[in-house]
Amino acid sequence: MSLITDLQWRHAVKAYDPTKKVTQENIDKILEAARFAPTSSGLQPFKVLVVENQALKDELAKGALNPECMRECSHVLVFAAWDKYTEERIDKVYDFTTDERDLPRGRFGSYTDKLKSIYLNEAAERNFAHTARQTYIALGLALAQAAELRVDSTPAEGFDNKVVDEVLQLEKLGLKSVSLMYVGVADTSRDWISTMKKVRMPKEEFVVEYK
Amino acid sequence: MSLITDLQWRHAVKAYDPTKKVTQENIDKILEAARFAPTSSGLQPFKVLVVENQALKDELAKGALNPECMRECSHVLVFAAWDKYTEERIDKVYDFTTDERDLPRGRFGSYTDKLKSIYLNEAAERNFAHTARQTYIALGLALAQAAELRVDSTPAEGFDNKVVDEVLQLEKLGLKSVSLMYVGVADTSRDWISTMKKVRMPKEEFVVEYK
Repeated sequence: MSLITDLQWRHAVKAYDPTKKVTQENIDKILEAARFAPTSSGLQPFKVLVVENQALKDELAKGALNPECMRECSHVLVFAAWDKYTEERIDKVYDFTTDERDLPRGRFGSYTDKLKSIYLNEAAERNFAHTARQTYIALGLALAQAAELRVDSTPAEGFDNKVVDEVLQLEKLGLKSVSLMYVGVADTSRDWISTMKKVRMPKEEFVVEYK
Repeated sequence: MSLITDLQWRHAVKAYDPTKKVTQENIDKILEAARFAPTSSGLQPFKVLVVENQALKDELAKGALNPECMRECSHVLVFAAWDKYTEERIDKVYDFTTDERDLPRGRFGSYTDKLKSIYLNEAAERNFAHTARQTYIALGLALAQAAELRVDSTPAEGFDNKVVDEVLQLEKLGLKSVSLMYVGVADTSRDWISTMKKVRMPKEEFVVEYK
């Protein structure tokens, strides 16, 4: 098994079998890959919300471009980023980090001061543009982890963020939804893309080398 | 080997040994993982520029927050996203896809028409916000691939985009730089973070479950 083989195996599943569930063990591994995603300055400015509850999935489906996937998959993972950077949020991460490393709090103070001088002087919207980008690193790794486990999944941006934010009350958590990942067992009879060749632009198109 | 083990192994290297190079074979595997990254609607709206040339790295270093990493690493990967969506760019990807699948061109016409009606009516800046996000999926997978190969790397947003865009003449390619990835062999004597415990916020903090 290798990452490239796993990535070649996966595809964005178009239909799930609503009678089949993914094990908690596999969900936990997918979340663990997302948790270990590298992020800018190590701030991990997002959370992953895991929706298994059917009534909640049905509610969320009202804002989904592909509501059947939302309703019929086993678990919906919602990648939701900090709505803004705050001094408290930055300090919380760095205090935890120094505690874990048996270092005095403030050991990285000049670094976090610099981060604060940048982020806290930006509009919340600009902060969010940055935190949202970080979620995609975790989304990619979660998809790769699902593929390693041969668990079917679908990344999705096609949904109404307002619906998701309201249903999950993300404002209270200081979060805004960015992307979704459906996880489940594909219904191969309806997953029309599964028989099509996986296509990527050729390397000559994708890469520019300066030797 | 597993993705989680690989992610736990890696860290953002702070200093590279300028006398050591990463093999082309390993660089190619890292690029292949990036090329197989899933992207919104499969558009792959970015390229990866690989800079091995020392004079070019020295030029790029003028805009880097950590110029030593830029100068001393083996290869710099620049993730650069489409500056905007265009009809031609969307058609090129979908024509290639249908050709590869032995399907008639236009087979996904109603889908690409919908994409065009959304993207081509947005400002270029908004298009770029979307294409830039996609690059982070590939960045994450490239970092994971490097880790699988036990190749040292550093993701970096700390650089002057204008310098990178100008030195690599990205405007001519219809691209704008988003992030960098330094790849090389760590100089462990100067890589001060390598002896510190890897820290991530605990699962209880990172995950919210709705059963």
